[in-house]
Amino acid sequence: TILKSARCEAFRTEEGRRKAHQALLENEVDALVVIGGNGTFTGAMLLARETGFPIIGLPGTIDNDLSGTDFTIGFDTATNTVVEAVDKIRDTADSHNRLFFVEVMGRDSGFIALNTGIATGAVAVMTPESGLSIQDLVDILNLGQASNKTSSIVIVAEGHPEGGAFEIATKVHAIDNKYETRVTVLGHLQRGGDPSCADRVLASRMGVAAVEGLLSGKKSVMAGVVNDQLVYYPFEEAVINKTATLEDEVRIAKILSI
Amino acid sequence: TILKSARCEAFRTEEGRRKAHQALLENEVDALVVIGGNGTFTGAMLLARETGFPIIGLPGTIDNDLSGTDFTIGFDTATNTVVEAVDKIRDTADSHNRLFFVEVMGRDSGFIALNTGIATGAVAVMTPESGLSIQDLVDILNLGQASNKTSSIVIVAEGHPEGGAFEIATKVHAIDNKYETRVTVLGHLQRGGDPSCADRVLASRMGVAAVEGLLSGKKSVMAGVVNDQLVYYPFEEAVINKTATLEDEVRIAKILSI
Amino acid sequence: TILKSARCEAFRTEEGRRKAHQALLENEVDALVVIGGNGTFTGAMLLARETGFPIIGLPGTIDNDLSGTDFTIGFDTATNTVVEAVDKIRDTADSHNRLFFVEVMGRDSGFIALNTGIATGAVAVMTPESGLSIQDLVDILNLGQASNKTSSIVIVAEGHPEGGAFEIATKVHAIDNKYETRVTVLGHLQRGGDPSCADRVLASRMGVAAVEGLLSGKKSVMAGVVNDQLVYYPFEEAVINKTATLEDEVRIAKILSI
Amino acid sequence: TILKSARCEAFRTEEGRRKAHQALLENEVDALVVIGGNGTFTGAMLLARETGFPIIGLPGTIDNDLSGTDFTIGFDTATNTVVEAVDKIRDTADSHNRLFFVEVMGRDSGFIALNTGIATGAVAVMTPESGLSIQDLVDILNLGQASNKTSSIVIVAEGHPEGGAFEIATKVHAIDNKYETRVTVLGHLQRGGDPSCADRVLASRMGVAAVEGLLSGKKSVMAGVVNDQLVYYPFEEAVINKTATLEDEVRIAKILSI
Repeated sequence: TILKSARCEAFRTEEGRRKAHQALLENEVDALVVIGGNGTFTGAMLLARETGFPIIGLPGTIDNDLSGTDFTIGFDTATNTVVEAVDKIRDTADSHNRLFFVEVMGRDSGFIALNTGIATGAVAVMTPESGLSIQDLVDILNLGQASNKTSSIVIVAEGHPEGGAFEIATKVHAIDNKYETRVTVLGHLQRGGDPSCADRVLASRMGVAAVEGLLSGKKSVMAGVVNDQLVYYPFEEAVINKTATLEDEVRIAKILSI
Repeated sequence: TILKSARCEAFRTEEGRRKAHQALLENEVDALVVIGGNGTFTGAMLLARETGFPIIGLPGTIDNDLSGTDFTIGFDTATNTVVEAVDKIRDTADSHNRLFFVEVMGRDSGFIALNTGIATGAVAVMTPESGLSIQDLVDILNLGQASNKTSSIVIVAEGHPEGGAFEIATKVHAIDNKYETRVTVLGHLQRGGDPSCADRVLASRMGVAAVEGLLSGKKSVMAGVVNDQLVYYPFEEAVINKTATLEDEVRIAKILSI
Repeated sequence: TILKSARCEAFRTEEGRRKAHQALLENEVDALVVIGGNGTFTGAMLLARETGFPIIGLPGTIDNDLSGTDFTIGFDTATNTVVEAVDKIRDTADSHNRLFFVEVMGRDSGFIALNTGIATGAVAVMTPESGLSIQDLVDILNLGQASNKTSSIVIVAEGHPEGGAFEIATKVHAIDNKYETRVTVLGHLQRGGDPSCADRVLASRMGVAAVEGLLSGKKSVMAGVVNDQLVYYPFEEAVINKTATLEDEVRIAKILSI
Repeated sequence: TILKSARCEAFRTEEGRRKAHQALLENEVDALVVIGGNGTFTGAMLLARETGFPIIGLPGTIDNDLSGTDFTIGFDTATNTVVEAVDKIRDTADSHNRLFFVEVMGRDSGFIALNTGIATGAVAVMTPESGLSIQDLVDILNLGQASNKTSSIVIVAEGHPEGGAFEIATKVHAIDNKYETRVTVLGHLQRGGDPSCADRVLASRMGVAAVEGLLSGKKSVMAGVVNDQLVYYPFEEAVINKTATLEDEVRIAKILSI
């Protein structure tokens, strides 16, 4: 994969990419399949544009924030990891005024936070996109208290404008000190673990699609799955972040959290 | 849910369903949401037809064999359970002539077997639909040996015409005794365990769909997800088993197993 | 169990305990088996002393810091949870100058930190008892770098005098900024999850010991397991924190981390 | 490790072991640490006796049936795997006359079966040592029914004289057909999976013990842990199967299953 070269500073320059191209030719590489997210595809796009080298990309990022595919490889595994962790927290989350803040990955996107929030019955989900203020959150929590909501889990995406789980917990406590707060920051454990069945099947389908695509002459595209159908999507469009499609999840999370 | 009554013999008679209807009215139940597979929906369909009672069904079966939805609630969890089990078997599956047969659920359908077969890189998958004979299987195994395939996992759906994993292992050994065989029968452990994130989100979406469907006057339909869109599908059509859509998975399993 | 009453403020007064005793007599309770740690046993000891009520305690705390038993119920499960989490972090811990700080439970004791540090091959373990300074830690890390140690995991017990994982990571970075740091705070997820086999067997043995102890007239003792033998240990001594026995683990952790 | 050579036929002859010794000398190996069970230690014992080569053994077998140590490396992990599997089966084990037979490893010893039987609250445990007949089992089951025991799990060690789980299930059904039976055969999945924290700490302690033992001149011994203390035990005695120490577990299993 191109991963390591993409992280290499030299590859960010045209000169560096010319060297990479040279190396590919010398090693008689016919084509490249790159797996990654925005950074990877941007590098691949430039290399392909400058040299004409055939490259197909596969969407591999736990954040699920690529256009041109409904699911990225790794997203399903990461959400299962988060759900297992929250389940364990919930085992002790019986006390009435105790709030558990769980920070999950998502610098710019709330896919992990929203899906795991729905799955774990979180009382609130703080995504980078949502615009929820601390006061909004306190209002939601008080509403949950009033309706005898037993859950006391708040999922926070790391990229929330108000800060990470620790900062938000502190701010909530400052506004309403009846809540005793506890914080878990999952961090990089969301990037590891054995892949789920769905992620492996997805990766297998896409791997086959990459090879078949190259054989049939496709290049500078990302293989994706949209509405359960394999599609090829130009790099230029794939690197645009996906943000608009969370409405349905937001609506469901709201219904279930009340 | 209607589950327990569906398993009750009395419910199979019109008289029994009349009593059930009576009980619903006495308890001032406005509508029913039933979760299950063919048996559940058949009962629900008859009750609805005879009494006009509003019922919406949700697809809940690990076999994924219902028409009208791409995924049933429970399927994703069951496939993860199988994959975890096979991963553990693979840890010791290093010897060259040792074959591991793993029997998974699927009396009439090979969805679990095929998806987990792809995910675990099985050398062969025996589904009820595939028509693979013991001789076919031995040929595939010898081919795998010839190409130095390291995997030695064979996934067997319980409903294969040649029998379960034990029977098939015995028959393979009878044809070609160079293979030492080991058998795992996963059985009911596939029906349990904590649900995966995807299953919980699916169930949440469908639960919201059921309530919203009932509120908008829908009845005698199953809520499903097709191409990632919520759809409502008449009970009559949902109970028809899904069998034809495995072509893509079969093709991929074949490519990857060689 | 006495757990809830132990957490109740009233129970901290003699008056409150008299009421509890009254309630026990009215409900014709013959004896109590209490499960917990120091707080629970202190309450039980006082109640027993003041009223003569027969009570036997079982050691139930994930911290493993009770005298009179080699293992407490819950410790084994918690360490497995931590090890699983660190394994997932390690999957991405390949980069050379990236350090992963994992904060585990242990306000006054380093049992969880030391055992999981050994189990995961951590480059360093920061326990409340160890007296390791930030400069000591940086020295260890540089030593690890010099010997091409691939691990980059530092386990931090929450009760370390220098602060939690975030504080320590920040201080390390301030001293030597070649390290890029990442932090995971496991928090309450260590208190939940399905119990391990060893914990269940331990709890079963102790449960039998409690009942048999009460039947044979024992009271005001904690049932424990020392050198794999069941023993009964007076409450007075059990509540003394265990601290001195970590030498062997510390020695092994040091050997393995180099 | 000596594992591969121990499985090699040549190593069973004095000639083969002489060659192995030669190879060790040529590669300037100073000493051997072998990990395994009876077979491994028998080979190591013979090699050491014939050549004087310094060898220390570590007990590595999931069966826990070696003398000279309370626990073998792998046993704790295997029992956790079994308990997780049985927990999943239990999730659906609600029906009253349905019996779930789970076959676990243990050709000559019932350690895994007994410990997991206690941990999962099995209604009965069939070990190779117990001498329980089919009629005994049916009596126990009827007793459980009478006392409204909700559990319906029977753990069967593969080495039970009456056969594996399938055979025993069939025989029970033949005697008393009110029971509907379901069978799970865990097989080799018990040999894999990520090791538990306790197994890793045990292996670390023993690894250190092996190296320290060799440095201090010990040889032809197995390092073991007895009553939580490191001990060295002659190969001759370690290979004698451990069978007599299950009394306590059998007693507890009996008390809890009623």
